[in-house]
Amino acid sequence: MTVGVIGLGLIGGSMAIDLRRRGFADRVVGVENDPVSASAAETMGLVDKVVDYDACIGESDIIVVAVPVGTAVKMVGDIMDKIADEQIVIDVCSTKEQINQAVQYHPRRARFVSTHPMAGTEYSGPWAAQPGLFDGRACIFCNSEESSPKALKTIEQMYGVLNMRPLYMNASAHDVHTAYVSHISHITSFALALTVLDKEKDEKHIFDLASGGFSSTVRLAKSNPDMWVPILTQNRDNVLHVLDTYLEKMNEFRSAIDSFDEDKIRDLILEANRIKKILR
Amino acid sequence: MTVGVIGLGLIGGSMAIDLRRRGFADRVVGVENDPVSASAAETMGLVDKVVDYDACIGESDIIVVAVPVGTAVKMVGDIMDKIADEQIVIDVCSTKEQINQAVQYHPRRARFVSTHPMAGTEYSGPWAAQPGLFDGRACIFCNSEESSPKALKTIEQMYGVLNMRPLYMNASAHDVHTAYVSHISHITSFALALTVLDKEKDEKHIFDLASGGFSSTVRLAKSNPDMWVPILTQNRDNVLHVLDTYLEKMNEFRSAIDSFDEDKIRDLILEANRIKKILR
Repeated sequence: MTVGVIGLGLIGGSMAIDLRRRGFADRVVGVENDPVSASAAETMGLVDKVVDYDACIGESDIIVVAVPVGTAVKMVGDIMDKIADEQIVIDVCSTKEQINQAVQYHPRRARFVSTHPMAGTEYSGPWAAQPGLFDGRACIFCNSEESSPKALKTIEQMYGVLNMRPLYMNASAHDVHTAYVSHISHITSFALALTVLDKEKDEKHIFDLASGGFSSTVRLAKSNPDMWVPILTQNRDNVLHVLDTYLEKMNEFRSAIDSFDEDKIRDLILEANRIKKILR
Repeated sequence: MTVGVIGLGLIGGSMAIDLRRRGFADRVVGVENDPVSASAAETMGLVDKVVDYDACIGESDIIVVAVPVGTAVKMVGDIMDKIADEQIVIDVCSTKEQINQAVQYHPRRARFVSTHPMAGTEYSGPWAAQPGLFDGRACIFCNSEESSPKALKTIEQMYGVLNMRPLYMNASAHDVHTAYVSHISHITSFALALTVLDKEKDEKHIFDLASGGFSSTVRLAKSNPDMWVPILTQNRDNVLHVLDTYLEKMNEFRSAIDSFDEDKIRDLILEANRIKKILR
């Protein structure tokens, strides 16, 4: 089995590593437009060979589209125009509704499997790729009833090799859910970084004081705009809805602190503490 | 040297462990009002003995006040009323202006050293205490010119044993800085938890999707209200100021996403990415 990975960043690169190490793929080829990243991916041995886009489509049994979602939306249909009957195309993007809409009526729709492996770090590029990234995490399969059962089964086996737990939902539900458990946390981290960086203009030593709690809360602010700009615009409506709920909660805190309302602050914190029962 | 720790939670308990293990104290006694915590602290060996408040003051060379800051503000003056000339009282609270104001004119002010060891986790109680918690972190000494040089030196040595880096600033500057690098991150985590918990009422499986990024951003929402209610009210003015800057940044994001302004979103993210240069 040859796997072709288009986009050798954190996700594409990490998949390439484990699919070959764990024997799912005999050969992994990759496509990477950025010449520095391409050369690094080859040097580090993420893939057997960096090839061009058409060659990748030509020689791969499974083609993994692991580029930012704005690009992926255009690319998936183009790849499906070019594949033969037994090839499979998958995407690994973080928003799913637009990409699924884009190929909804494609004559080879059944050869497409739309997935979101829910794993990652705040780092990007082939240097960020790592073995074991996906182990134990959830992988969401979207609109899987539109994929052929055989193509779906192959991709389920592939994610099985990556030790991912499969979950199934439609693309639209996916985008609602990820707005809550992923997109909003990125925005809150970005805003937190901006707030403290603003202050740093006057107070050079402010970061001397930052302890583990701050670093943990702000770490997603290191995330790459190439990935995040299209996520936030493609999932605009859901993100705005969650953002507005979040701003309401912030304003409840603001108002309770403003009026020294200790009972109200305590109630809000106790309610937030319920997260303990849900997340380790 | 006998060290008495009043409040055997995360901070007090962790100090007790390392001050004895590392030989700074021959004996550590503790005061803990909650009977379950008191019994646990003794069983786990955090302290040699749990004693009552007056006994702790009577037999300790250094008295560490490690209770929530609302209680500490009242307690420190009372302890200073009761100590003999060579005893030292320190606090380890997260806000410093009110506690320093409270004892500003106390006749034994010079025996008081006001410190904030910048370490912790989102857990609380004696069960959360751990060796090595303070290693490599910053410890802030506030208004240290009001402490006697000898008392200050003893406490500097004590934090040296805990491997902390000393920083010196006045209480008012401390409270501004910590509003930025600690208090605001707690509020953003609480609000994030509340937002997602709200949604969970309809969508039972929403947390199945949470990946590492979400957990990291929300983990401070597990923090204890007994600690955080007084911090947020005592540091009200600074917290509100930072909160308002933060809400401005969130609204910039909101408006850029609302209007599909990709350039603006990219600029905000790139600016936030500068945090990479500052935090590992």
